[in-house]
Parts: sequence; structure tokens; C-alpha cells
Amino acid sequence: MATDLHPDVFPVIMAGGSGTRFWPLSRASRPKQFLPLSTSRPLIVETLARLKGIAPPKRSFVVCGAVHAPLVRKTLLSLPKQNVLVEPQARNTAPAIALAAAHVARQNPLGIVVVIPSDQHVADVPAFQAALNDAISVAKEGHIVTLGIHPTRPETGYGYIQVGDALSGAAKQVKRFAEKPDRPTAEQYLVSGEYLWNAGLFVFRADVMLEAFARHMPELAKPLDAIRAVLGTKKEAAVVKREFPKMPATSIDYGVAEKASNMAVVPCRCGWSDVGSFNALPEVRPLDAAGNVSSGTTFLIDSTGCVVMAKDKPIAVVGMTDVVVVDAGDAMLVLPKEKSQDVRKVVEALKAKKLVRYL
Amino acid sequence: MATDLHPDVFPVIMAGGSGTRFWPLSRASRPKQFLPLSTSRPLIVETLARLKGIAPPKRSFVVCGAVHAPLVRKTLLSLPKQNVLVEPQARNTAPAIALAAAHVARQNPLGIVVVIPSDQHVADVPAFQAALNDAISVAKEGHIVTLGIHPTRPETGYGYIQVGDALSGAAKQVKRFAEKPDRPTAEQYLVSGEYLWNAGLFVFRADVMLEAFARHMPELAKPLDAIRAVLGTKKEAAVVKREFPKMPATSIDYGVAEKASNMAVVPCRCGWSDVGSFNALPEVRPLDAAGNVSSGTTFLIDSTGCVVMAKDKPIAVVGMTDVVVVDAGDAMLVLPKEKSQDVRKVVEALKAKKLVRYL
Repeated sequence: MATDLHPDVFPVIMAGGSGTRFWPLSRASRPKQFLPLSTSRPLIVETLARLKGIAPPKRSFVVCGAVHAPLVRKTLLSLPKQNVLVEPQARNTAPAIALAAAHVARQNPLGIVVVIPSDQHVADVPAFQAALNDAISVAKEGHIVTLGIHPTRPETGYGYIQVGDALSGAAKQVKRFAEKPDRPTAEQYLVSGEYLWNAGLFVFRADVMLEAFARHMPELAKPLDAIRAVLGTKKEAAVVKREFPKMPATSIDYGVAEKASNMAVVPCRCGWSDVGSFNALPEVRPLDAAGNVSSGTTFLIDSTGCVVMAKDKPIAVVGMTDVVVVDAGDAMLVLPKEKSQDVRKVVEALKAKKLVRYL
Repeated sequence: MATDLHPDVFPVIMAGGSGTRFWPLSRASRPKQFLPLSTSRPLIVETLARLKGIAPPKRSFVVCGAVHAPLVRKTLLSLPKQNVLVEPQARNTAPAIALAAAHVARQNPLGIVVVIPSDQHVADVPAFQAALNDAISVAKEGHIVTLGIHPTRPETGYGYIQVGDALSGAAKQVKRFAEKPDRPTAEQYLVSGEYLWNAGLFVFRADVMLEAFARHMPELAKPLDAIRAVLGTKKEAAVVKREFPKMPATSIDYGVAEKASNMAVVPCRCGWSDVGSFNALPEVRPLDAAGNVSSGTTFLIDSTGCVVMAKDKPIAVVGMTDVVVVDAGDAMLVLPKEKSQDVRKVVEALKAKKLVRYL
């Protein structure tokens, strides 16, 4: 590994997600971040690897639900076991970030926290790391910095950040955070060149965020203070279990970013993808000559634009266009690629029939 | 079981087929006739069952290749083991029928042979049996009778029989046997009302067929006589092995039916299907309200006209139209229903890659 360039930087990998958009690969016990979707390694492994050069695993934290903590430890062997921070309840991003910021502040009040979702893909890692380094510099000055992704399509599924004037180095002021837009608005955003995708990437000093919680989310700051008072003592587990659920289940965007005056944004063009559904796999995985993505033993004949994921047995796909075929070993899925989000209909049907085994 | 109405009738089930059109369900070791395609029972089991009321299993024969003989015995437990007649080589239908006719003639020279393919479906069994009974009556008079299926579409994949004048009862004279037609000709046949499908169903007296072989296929009759001379003796196996391959690899249609003057045809409207490919399954299996055919545990959501066959694990199909999804347990296939015949492309690819395991 490279020299420890940033001894005061603490990555916090957010692994609380429990999506169903990759059923049958994703399950309640094995959500998206644990799947090898972009490469042959789970997304969370790629995420930790992406941060090497910024900070080593020993200073990285993962925040996740109790049921997934053992899987996180098994999947990220280089991560110290005590760096897995367990949310007693899923309560959106603000409480998760608060818990992580408290841990970092205990080690170093001026420590720089890099919040990064565990289930995204970045094609151009050097570009991503360069943007992070820029963000770290600005965060040191007391800003809460977000990485804004240059949009490549009029996406209606993400929040946007309107960029303001230059601030410091590559960083810009934030004019405003915009909610998920409708299609015409998204097209306008794309054309304007003023808007970036909000990808859930935040960089800030621990003390700055704790102060922001105190100012903008006092109802969160109170239970957080109770937790901070006992961190590292025998009481920690019990107090976290008692106080964490008292924090409001709010996103960091709504709770802090949209309200704070010290926000900054570093624009980033790094081949980012949130790997949102099977439909996104062709943008993150290598394609064959016919534009298909495949894994495992597959025979793709007269087929184009397909996503075919085999497991222990071969899958032959003949004469199909833009279809998703996935074998998870114990269940299979076939659907049109552009209807990838309809996977939830299967999950709903399984729930309705109480087929817990496949959920 | 009903009374034994026809003590002189001997069904001969032709099970020499080795098609690949149902891959991955069908394999070299397990061809179509052994698959539960029309019901939950293999086609060959349904075929034997269809003949009950005409003749009991103890008087039924099955002709098949050596590799499939054990599977025939295991699949048809009610069939006497010695009634499985093994072809030392696949040599088309004339030699297979000759071997069976020889066995029947040894038991009863005037025995009526009912030749029936092992891999077809009949929806209306009483209508089929009625036609067979008509055919048996005419066969007793010395005719070689074929059952002609009323065509329901301008099929170019079958041979046709042009019907002539009335002969006896329901039986008609045969004007001619016509080869597989091109599309315009097939449409003409359909409109004319004069043509029936040749479904490979023949009914004749054993002595009549042996005489027909002597007259129309002397090069077959010679090795056949050598076999007949030793049937039931210790020499049988060796002589069959030596003489059978000497018979010309010719179809009974070309070798006898197109030449004989004592042909007759009994028209039959019985919901017949040759179950030619996955595309044929919707005509032989029950459909759900959306026109899908399925077996095993399946979740069909927003899907119509699909054929979905699950095995040990559930298959979810969402938003698909007219697609075939088949899990054979050790291999899977997805293709558009109307391209069902392209299954052979997978088989070719497997052969090219020498993946014998999946052939």
C-alpha cells in the first residue's frame, strides 16, 4: 500500500441498504452491497478497495444493520472487527452518519469523515480519488463537502445539486439541493450544465458535523450526546441500543445538507454508477461484441443487449434481445431489461405467498 | 381394464427417435418420448395408455435403440421385457416395422399390427380409438391402413395423404402420398379438404406387410427372412445384429406405402399433435388465463403466451411475451417461442465445444 497520505481521514462505508432490485441475487440476508455485480468481487469489497490510497482499512468504518454485521466481517477481512458499527434499527442516513461521526470524533475530533455508500461503482478510480482529495482539503477548512457527479442522462431517480460560484480549489458553493425532478426538469438540469447528481458522498470534519447536528437536528443531537458519553465503555452497547432509535429517521440531505450554510461541492467525472438495477449492469460490466453482459457458463446465440448471469449450470439464450436472465442457484428470473424495476413485483408476490425462503 | 376386444391386435410403439428439439429437457440419453411434455407422464407412457381398450400391454411391442432399451423397460413397467425390440442400428422406419412384423407374425401370422409413434399427443382418445377400430376392420380385409389426421393449419413439416373414393366403412382409398409441401401448396391442401396429415400411424395384418416387403423391398425382405428363421432361438440376437444393418435405411412411407396398391386411409379428427417443439406445448397442455403453459413452481407476472418449465427451483417471469424458459436441472434455455426450432443451434454449439455432458 501507498504511504498513509491522510492520517486524519476516516472512511465510513454505508451498508445499511436492503434493496430488492436484484432479486433473486439479492435477499434480505444478502442485499445488493454483498453481490459481485460490477466485478467478480462484492460491491462493498470494491468500495473499500477504492478508498485505499485515501485511508487504510484499519481507519475505515462500516455502518450496517445487526443481521448483516457477521457478513460484513466475513466479507471485509482487512477491516478491524470493532470498526463494524451496528445500527440497532434502520433509521435512514442521518443517525448512521451521526453514530460514525461520534466514533471518529472520539479518536480525533478534527478527523475527516468520508461517507461513501457501499453499493456503487466507479470506473475511473484515480479521478474519484482526486475529487476526494480535493474534498478533503476543503473539508479541513470547515466545510461539509459533497461530491457531485456530472449527469450523463436526464435521470429522474436521483436528487441534484445546483452548483454555485467557485469556493476553493476544485470546490464550488452549493446553490441548492434539488429533490428528484420530473422528466422535463431533469432534461433542463442536464442541458443547463449547472446541476450535478447527489450520490450520497460526503466529506467533513467530525467536529463540524457534530456541530451541524446540534444546530440543525437538535432532536438527533440529544440521543447522540448520550451515546458519545459512553463510547468505549461497557455501557456503550446498551446505550446505543436505547438511544439510537430515538434519533429521527431522516436523511443527511434533508436533515443537514439542505439547511447548512457551510456546504460545498466538488464536481466529479469518474464513471460513477449507483448500479440501480439489472438494467445498469451493461454500464458497469464488460460487454461482448453483441452488447451482452454475462457471468458463469452461458451460450448466447443470436442474442443482443442481454444480461445473463449463470450460477452452477449453463444458461443458453437464443434469439433474445434486451432480456435479463438470472440464476441465483435457488431461484431464477427472466424479464425485459428495461423493466428491471419490476423485480419488486416478484418480491411482493413472494411476500404475499409467505415464501420467506426466497425473500 | 376393458375386455380384450381384439385378441389378434398387436400395437408396435416406435421409440427410435433421438430428437434435440426439446433441449435441455431432451438429451441423447433421454429423447423426447421419455419426457412428460403433454401431461405429467412421459409421452411414451401416454402412448401405451392410449392403446388400452385396443390391446393390453402384454401384446404391445416397443422398438427402440439399444441405449434406450433399459429406459423403456423402466418407464413402461407393464410391458413384458421381451416385448422391447432393440434395433442394432437406427435405420429409419421400414426395418423397425419389419422387425416388429416378424415378431407378431411368429405369434399370429394374421395378427393385426398397429404402428404408432411413441412421442405424439392425442387430446380426444375415444375418437382416436374409434378410428383405430375402423382401421383394424379394414386391415383384416388385407389393406395396409394409415390414419390420416385432418389438417388444422398449412403445415409444411409433414407429409400428406390425398384421399380417394370410399372403400369400406370409414376407410377411403389413397389417391397418393404427397411429400412435405411448400407453403402455397400446403395452403392449397388445407383449402381443398382432400388432404390429410400422414402421422406415421399404420395398421395392417402381419402377413400382408411381410408380403409387401417381399414385393416392394426385396433387399429388405432377404435379411428379414434370415431373422424370421431364427426368432425365438438362441441364434436370434446374433442374427438380428448381423442382418438388421443390411436392411435399407428407408421409411415405410417411401418403401411400401407409396408403392403398394392395397393402401387405405381412415380420416381421424382427434386433437392430434406431434409435439414438435416447445412452440407446440400450448396446443397440448392446459393454459392459464394469460395463455401461459407452466410446470413446476413458477411466478408469471405481466406475462402472456409463455412456456415456463421449472424443475427444482422457482422461476419468476415478469413482463415477457411468447417466450420459452426451461430449466432441466443441469442446464437452462431461454428463447422466443416462435424460434423454438433454433434450439438446435445450442446443441450444435455444445457439440462444437465437445460439452458431451449437456448433449
